Amino acid sequence: MLEDMFDFLERMSGGEGPVWQPAPASARTAIAEPLPQEGCSLEQAYGLFRDSILPYAVGNAHPGFMGWVHGAGTPVGMLAEMLAAGLNANLGGRDHMPVELERQVVRWGRELFAFPDTASGVFVTGSSMANFLGVLVARSRALGPSVRTDGMQGQGGGALVAYASRAAHACVARAMDLAGLGSAALNLIDVDGSGALDTDALASAIGCDLRQGRRPFLLVGTAGSVDTGAIDDLAALADIAARHRLHFHVDGAFGALGMLAADLAPRLGGIERADSIALDFHKWMHVPYDAGFILVRDGKHHLAAFDGGAHSYLAREPGGMSAGSPWPCDYGPDLSRGFRALKTWMTLKVYGARRLGAAISDSCERARHLGELVRRQAELELMAPVHLNIVCFRFRAPEGISDELNSRLLQAIQGSGIAAPSSTRIDGKYVLRAALFNHRTGRAQLAGLIDAALVHGRALLDELARQETTGTDRNSTCRNY
Amino acid sequence: MLEDMFDFLERMSGGEGPVWQPAPASARTAIAEPLPQEGCSLEQAYGLFRDSILPYAVGNAHPGFMGWVHGAGTPVGMLAEMLAAGLNANLGGRDHMPVELERQVVRWGRELFAFPDTASGVFVTGSSMANFLGVLVARSRALGPSVRTDGMQGQGGGALVAYASRAAHACVARAMDLAGLGSAALNLIDVDGSGALDTDALASAIGCDLRQGRRPFLLVGTAGSVDTGAIDDLAALADIAARHRLHFHVDGAFGALGMLAADLAPRLGGIERADSIALDFHKWMHVPYDAGFILVRDGKHHLAAFDGGAHSYLAREPGGMSAGSPWPCDYGPDLSRGFRALKTWMTLKVYGARRLGAAISDSCERARHLGELVRRQAELELMAPVHLNIVCFRFRAPEGISDELNSRLLQAIQGSGIAAPSSTRIDGKYVLRAALFNHRTGRAQLAGLIDAALVHGRALLDELARQETTGTDRNSTCRNY
Ligand SMILES: Cc1ncc(COP(=O)(O)O)c(C=O)c1O
Ligand SMILES: Cc1ncc(COP(=O)(O)O)c(C=O)c1O
Repeated sequence: MLEDMFDFLERMSGGEGPVWQPAPASARTAIAEPLPQEGCSLEQAYGLFRDSILPYAVGNAHPGFMGWVHGAGTPVGMLAEMLAAGLNANLGGRDHMPVELERQVVRWGRELFAFPDTASGVFVTGSSMANFLGVLVARSRALGPSVRTDGMQGQGGGALVAYASRAAHACVARAMDLAGLGSAALNLIDVDGSGALDTDALASAIGCDLRQGRRPFLLVGTAGSVDTGAIDDLAALADIAARHRLHFHVDGAFGALGMLAADLAPRLGGIERADSIALDFHKWMHVPYDAGFILVRDGKHHLAAFDGGAHSYLAREPGGMSAGSPWPCDYGPDLSRGFRALKTWMTLKVYGARRLGAAISDSCERARHLGELVRRQAELELMAPVHLNIVCFRFRAPEGISDELNSRLLQAIQGSGIAAPSSTRIDGKYVLRAALFNHRTGRAQLAGLIDAALVHGRALLDELARQETTGTDRNSTCRNY
Repeated sequence: MLEDMFDFLERMSGGEGPVWQPAPASARTAIAEPLPQEGCSLEQAYGLFRDSILPYAVGNAHPGFMGWVHGAGTPVGMLAEMLAAGLNANLGGRDHMPVELERQVVRWGRELFAFPDTASGVFVTGSSMANFLGVLVARSRALGPSVRTDGMQGQGGGALVAYASRAAHACVARAMDLAGLGSAALNLIDVDGSGALDTDALASAIGCDLRQGRRPFLLVGTAGSVDTGAIDDLAALADIAARHRLHFHVDGAFGALGMLAADLAPRLGGIERADSIALDFHKWMHVPYDAGFILVRDGKHHLAAFDGGAHSYLAREPGGMSAGSPWPCDYGPDLSRGFRALKTWMTLKVYGARRLGAAISDSCERARHLGELVRRQAELELMAPVHLNIVCFRFRAPEGISDELNSRLLQAIQGSGIAAPSSTRIDGKYVLRAALFNHRTGRAQLAGLIDAALVHGRALLDELARQETTGTDRNSTCRNY
């Protein structure tokens, strides 16, 4: 298995085979069976994995993958996960070295973001969860930890309101929903021309809310927006948060690790003033899924939002295995939890911060190059500035058919196996989105993407233009894809 | 590394070495360093793991481990995690076989609990999170999915109230806190003599709440309480839930998988009528951490609590990689998420349901044996009935020193490396708690536990009795542990 996986990684890294291919019905059938009462050999189970699962994943290890914000994975991360699973430590708490290693990663987090020694942190699944934790810390700061007992129902003194830009990830609104604050209590502020939160608009929104008796309590800055990689002016947001005593949370799901790159770190200026930061090691640092993380400036605020309420079987002792309080379970909603710290620690140890930062920086350089390639083609249109490592573009077509053409273009490129971009909407317009996270993606794949976009784009334009005139039912054609 | 881990598992399974030992200062120092700018060799990083981490974990693979509700891990689980990390699939969504494998485990879940084909499920970290999801599904059923937008603040029509027994895990109250309902809105009902929720007390509590204008909306049954393994009368709870139109959620963190064991399944009767079930594969089924799971009877209710709100970059397409909706991210708060399904699937495939069930059944048999051993010793006192695989007892001592003696006894036994029980409180009294999850634990370890309890218990009784008379400061003695 180990040899096979090394081979797999080598083949994928080398760009062999398609990035992605749809799973054939036979693969789905191969795993469809009732709950097995009797076991089978490990070889048999592994055979199913090797033949029916492995070839039909999304291909994020492949240099042609430029779809969503996916890490590419590394052999070191794979080995670390194997060690973690063999050891099978439960990182909820108790006094042992795996917990201590998680604390070591927290110390590195403090160092990277120039946070004080009193800052705390904890691993979670991903930034969706880390943003949720940030909202909960803010909630308990605003209403006092008694909100945990009393709930939101009886809260007087004006409705709480939070702020983020329209470009903020949808999970921020989701976090408000989960916490019982309601996603409508997130006031989405317009962005400026660069896609960053418009700070003037924010200031007037806060003023407006205050006049209407609402209680601003939380400001979420985005360090690397998911659609275009835009970075909010974090220093300006920190000022506004300080002025209005808002909890200042930064969603740095992928962008925060730009701190590892000398050329990107200055653009994150102000992040060191955040009250909390959400980020993922499984994105731009390629730690295997999942490895989300939150860092909180004031460990006391963090504890106040999560500790206590523990069952007596989780009581702490002065010695023995139940020593070493506080435990990770005092900093978040998880009790049993895996050893995410090991794969993260080992990635930082073996590759080193400088090299990981250089890879991040390189992917931004490649994105600028891709932006250039798009600009050079009259048939393509660059749809957003290239802030970091994300390039949004579309094949030019009459506005009436542009969305359909580009949606089918996306499926055609993905189906070709040459490259796997994703899509999004910019000002309501459907665009292709190449997110260059994979450090293995080179200029060859970028050229391949442009070629595929042109070839399939032209064919689709022909086809759709013909349909326009002949009036063929478009939907029936769609289904052929 | 792989060979070393197999050796480690073999040594641990064989009961070699101490279960747990405190980490020496040197191990903590070995990993304490600033964020490494330059990388080191894999050998060096692995050496640190091997020498400073691996020997100082909690020892849940060791047959002497009988502390908390920990799975023991298996070689198959380790290999599956290695495969998953090499593939590095993101299980948030999109059209690929890893997502399809998660759906296959959901189908097995339906089969195991006799849930309809319309039931849905999703992996999460652990039951703390799965219980939280259960509360959110119940919240959205009670108030309508608009609560997600509007929050709890403006909700009229009486305060929502939920029910669980006093023996329910603390994470149920925590789930109410997270969801903005407040932990005080969980009405904790007394237990009967067997530790199960007293259904008469429940009926009158509901009546009382209704008369006071509250809105009962959720009933949480416990299938295997964390302290003693007590099982609520799930069929009776299902009746009460039906009568009052409550969402009936079962916290089966470990106990629900008793369904795999022919002798235990009947005791879970009524679980097939639950609206949702939380359970962990990382507990009694030994899947490596973490692998929590929730099954929801009505997939529509499940979706209504979590879907939508997705960013446009997550839009679904009729073909290509973005097909195959709904995605796992529509069933819970996580977007990026690891491939927990693979290790769970491979465990069920290779060991088979029957053998996994037999191991569960066996550990209950061993618990009954341990209960017998305790009963045979006049110096020991069995503190709760042995329902499943958990045995609570203490060393007899005058009530004034019993708690301190038994707390120090726990630390002494853990420090001996022979066995690692945990503790809890029963009716306020400090007790030792042996939770027999490890399928490798045999009668030898049980005898070892009893011996250690007697030897250290007697010594402590002497010491504390002497102090009682000489008046030595007890606290300074404590610190020596
Ligand atoms: C800016 C941003 N925030 C939050 C998230 C959600 O993070 P996760 O998928 O780890 O939950 C993403 C995911 O891509 C993101 O790009
Ligand atoms: C009955 C019960 N419920 C919930 C939990 C919490 O589960 P987890 O630790 O997976 O979050 C536990 C943990 O032991 C438990 O025993």
